[in-house]
Amino acid sequence: MNSKIKWLREKMKMLNLEGMIISNPVNIRYLTNIVAEGILLITRKENIFLTDGRYIEEVQNVLTIDDEIVVHEFKEYSKDEYENFFLFCENVGFEEDYITYAGYKEYMHKYKVNNLQETEKMIEKQRMIKDEEEIQKLRKACKLTDDCFEYLIKYIKIGQTEKEIALEIEKYFRLNGAEGVSFEPIVASGKNSSKPHAIPTDKKIDLGDVITLDFGCKHEGYCSDMTRTIFVGYIPEEVKKIYDLVLRNQLKTGKELKEGANIKQITKMVENDFKLNGYELVHSLGHGVGLDIHELPAISSRNDKNLKEKMVITNEPGIYVPGKFGVRIEDTVLVGKEISENLTKSSKEYIIVDKQ
Amino acid sequence: MNSKIKWLREKMKMLNLEGMIISNPVNIRYLTNIVAEGILLITRKENIFLTDGRYIEEVQNVLTIDDEIVVHEFKEYSKDEYENFFLFCENVGFEEDYITYAGYKEYMHKYKVNNLQETEKMIEKQRMIKDEEEIQKLRKACKLTDDCFEYLIKYIKIGQTEKEIALEIEKYFRLNGAEGVSFEPIVASGKNSSKPHAIPTDKKIDLGDVITLDFGCKHEGYCSDMTRTIFVGYIPEEVKKIYDLVLRNQLKTGKELKEGANIKQITKMVENDFKLNGYELVHSLGHGVGLDIHELPAISSRNDKNLKEKMVITNEPGIYVPGKFGVRIEDTVLVGKEISENLTKSSKEYIIVDKQ
Repeated sequence: MNSKIKWLREKMKMLNLEGMIISNPVNIRYLTNIVAEGILLITRKENIFLTDGRYIEEVQNVLTIDDEIVVHEFKEYSKDEYENFFLFCENVGFEEDYITYAGYKEYMHKYKVNNLQETEKMIEKQRMIKDEEEIQKLRKACKLTDDCFEYLIKYIKIGQTEKEIALEIEKYFRLNGAEGVSFEPIVASGKNSSKPHAIPTDKKIDLGDVITLDFGCKHEGYCSDMTRTIFVGYIPEEVKKIYDLVLRNQLKTGKELKEGANIKQITKMVENDFKLNGYELVHSLGHGVGLDIHELPAISSRNDKNLKEKMVITNEPGIYVPGKFGVRIEDTVLVGKEISENLTKSSKEYIIVDKQ
Repeated sequence: MNSKIKWLREKMKMLNLEGMIISNPVNIRYLTNIVAEGILLITRKENIFLTDGRYIEEVQNVLTIDDEIVVHEFKEYSKDEYENFFLFCENVGFEEDYITYAGYKEYMHKYKVNNLQETEKMIEKQRMIKDEEEIQKLRKACKLTDDCFEYLIKYIKIGQTEKEIALEIEKYFRLNGAEGVSFEPIVASGKNSSKPHAIPTDKKIDLGDVITLDFGCKHEGYCSDMTRTIFVGYIPEEVKKIYDLVLRNQLKTGKELKEGANIKQITKMVENDFKLNGYELVHSLGHGVGLDIHELPAISSRNDKNLKEKMVITNEPGIYVPGKFGVRIEDTVLVGKEISENLTKSSKEYIIVDKQ
């Protein structure tokens, strides 16, 4: 059997779950490699993927005999047969953080289960630790992101708009082997860079601007996420001071991210250093990255858990001076036993673009 | 008070709801024009939008005194104060098709309501009928889509890839005043056009291809949706026959879409004509369009309801010959009392592109 479903079945046994209904397409992709609308039923006897006619051929092509997953169309089953999937099962798990309240009631009705049991993001928690195949995919997504950045610093010119540059990022990824962007790129220049979640505008790149470039792509479903803050023409002294402060914290954090490190403590370290210098860390220090661009674990001072080997997370401190400018520096990081590895490897030296 | 919230309060009274929690951001935008993360509470005394600090200024700028909506930060309220929002309320409505099961339990806990009551998509149902302001926005989105199509038939050349053309659509919209695309454009050429939901590939446009272009944009939140099938160099005889069959049905349907028309019957009419000619309508005939690209009503033979004036829906019959080609023709349509109006107005004559 597919190793991830094997894990799931063992976990279910520990939790006294005799079946499980998996509806979140990202969890289904994680467990089976299937990318299609449908639902995965883990019953006593079988692993069944139910889908509609459009997807049958595609899904069969992805699965191998080793997966031990059977594929059927929704419409092949009668009302009674739906009720039989979990016959004599006391507890059947479902994804309470994905399924709507209406969906929950529909499941109750359709599968006639005694007890639909919450599963507390157990698959999402398992997804935190990446296997070798996943790490390879993340590496590739990060490499494409570095390549895109290299392209961008040659491409960006004074007078282009933020929107134009954002579109060029999307174009680069789609035409260079990525599945697309992992999120809408942030291109925020001058004053606009003071908003952490700026949306690209028609503002033109101008001499003396800082530009925050926050972008990433997807490769075989896996996401990358990187931010660099670059300069146009010259580096204003007040920006340089903050750039140095953010970079120092980003590098220091990078060294701390390893097996056993406490997430809250690491975040507090950055928060304190910012505070000492009169600034504030207004967003999280980072987040997990994988099939979702934001996934577990949250890297913030509200998370008192420890890091584990083979987590992939972002390290993204930033400082924002309202109405003036902002600086954020971010890498996607593979957590190791003794040391972490930045999967995004673009330079963090001062980068100045100055072409007209 | 804002007229949409006034409507909601009257509806709530009829349903014996003493309060309501609105979480779906599209419903919140519909009711208030607010575009921000947050939650709208309709309490006995007030309309309250709760959000986080980032959005306060932006939200205040959108609201007027007439809206009678007060804005507060989540963190201003203590646990006890959350419990007081719906004090002495028996029934409080929520959106069971939007809120997850986990979210439902969180609301129960946080607001301590006796009975959180399902509301059966009442806001989504109200959204089906568009007011003048909404129609203006939809008109503008559709006009931009027509303009984009005019641009495309000059732009498209033999040798370009589907992906390049899809990117050009996105670029056109973003640089010409739209907020962006309303969905990822479909550009499906040659054999690929036989898949109704094709994703743009690296396939190059070739002589003798048909190209299905299914695309739309957003203007002030409102979506457009149009499909045209065009030809490269010449029109193969077998494709022409099917094009004529699809177009005849699209035009005939267009004439039937008016107040009181039965959705099931209209769809059956197309299904039957396709069947008579040896083909099948494999997807819905259409769907509602508004703040969401797919919203109520569904235009399919499973919907036995009648159309109403000022609904905005798509009319999109299509025929797909597996492994060979497909033809789909779609307009966004404003339903009228006696007659419907196509809001997308691009030509449906044979269009042949042949530039190298």
